[in-house]
Amino acid sequence: MADEITACVVIIGNEILSGKTQDLNLAFIGQRCDGLGIQLNEMRVIPDEQATIVSTVNECRHNFTYVFTTGGIGPTHDDITSASIALAFGKKIVRSEQAREAMDKYYDVENMTEARLKMADVPEDVVLIDNPISGAPGFQIENVFVLAGIPSIMQAMFDGITDRLVGGAAILTENVATNLGESTIALDLGRLQEAYSEVSIGSYPYFKKGKFGVNLVLRSTNAERLVTLKSELKDMITGLKGQVFE
Amino acid sequence: MADEITACVVIIGNEILSGKTQDLNLAFIGQRCDGLGIQLNEMRVIPDEQATIVSTVNECRHNFTYVFTTGGIGPTHDDITSASIALAFGKKIVRSEQAREAMDKYYDVENMTEARLKMADVPEDVVLIDNPISGAPGFQIENVFVLAGIPSIMQAMFDGITDRLVGGAAILTENVATNLGESTIALDLGRLQEAYSEVSIGSYPYFKKGKFGVNLVLRSTNAERLVTLKSELKDMITGLKGQVFE
Repeated sequence: MADEITACVVIIGNEILSGKTQDLNLAFIGQRCDGLGIQLNEMRVIPDEQATIVSTVNECRHNFTYVFTTGGIGPTHDDITSASIALAFGKKIVRSEQAREAMDKYYDVENMTEARLKMADVPEDVVLIDNPISGAPGFQIENVFVLAGIPSIMQAMFDGITDRLVGGAAILTENVATNLGESTIALDLGRLQEAYSEVSIGSYPYFKKGKFGVNLVLRSTNAERLVTLKSELKDMITGLKGQVFE
Repeated sequence: MADEITACVVIIGNEILSGKTQDLNLAFIGQRCDGLGIQLNEMRVIPDEQATIVSTVNECRHNFTYVFTTGGIGPTHDDITSASIALAFGKKIVRSEQAREAMDKYYDVENMTEARLKMADVPEDVVLIDNPISGAPGFQIENVFVLAGIPSIMQAMFDGITDRLVGGAAILTENVATNLGESTIALDLGRLQEAYSEVSIGSYPYFKKGKFGVNLVLRSTNAERLVTLKSELKDMITGLKGQVFE
């Protein structure tokens, strides 16, 4: 796994950390990473706090191939992501003419307030990331991609950077659910995992409408083994007198 | 802030990391922490992978007053949280008679399979955490609390440990939303943040039903200042010809 391409998502914002706003960005980035053959190995949610952003970004950019941050690049006092990332890289913050031009297409001159212009302030020597929704760009600095927090904008930004990301074979997933409990399937499931080392089998118990059950998630870059294992899993469940849900 | 009581939530599970299952545990723990006066400062989502669990738990238990992990304590091959946490603390895994007795109340003898018994294997010298839903307990080791991943069980476990947690004054929150954009309010908002240093003001843009707006979240242990600031914020929005949503 030494040459595995990995990623970490860093979500910046007290609002997500408080649980009041449900994050939607992880699922989107995770799906895109699967398609690109990038192993999304960690997500962190951190507060809008300079020291934490600096230490998190510096730790993660050394531990993962790619780091995607979301949030904190707007115009208000708590939007400190750009300044914190400049600090993490030991760079100055400069007003980007290119960013300003991108924003000019979205705002009339009389609406180009000083607060709004703050969104054109980025660390020096970055590559901008296009924002086709509202103009104010994100940016890339080395292996760190700084994206907006609003999901629609983040998604548009992400889709604009996929050609900068070098991944591997696409990671495919399959799901099988059953009404059997984890303890009932554990032994046979463990044996199948040993036999199919190219597939990772995750077993996730759930509790829905008063009933427990298990959702099995299979992940692999090998489509053939994935399909064979899925079929074996269904046989296993039926053999244990359980129901298969797909 | 040197004596601030802090916490980190570590969510263990590929299923959450893939975004396929939406995490519900952060919001619950965050709310409880607010009430207990514990500052929830970080959340991490990591895969079911031993080296990552060990390094994450060892990093977080030194950086935060409390660490709450969820997930990975069931009976299947990918439930490696207990073993990984034992490793993080340099402890052996032992079969806990007390855990086994707790489980005996929930399962008939013929259903106490070897897979199920694995859930009675915990690091030595831990304090168990009661599971009033399905028997198999969580455990506490120093400042790390190891909880189940299923929300209903995790919640029951958490409510059983609140008397072990020493917090501070309860953290209160208020919300004000507006149809004004962040750039319009940024200047006045920054001035109010400076005037109210005891309150943290978070500004979170949203995009709903085709319209952008901002949700302002106020957090403080000082109820009086919180209420006064909320009223000032509403005046600010009205003064800028915006609508206030509560």
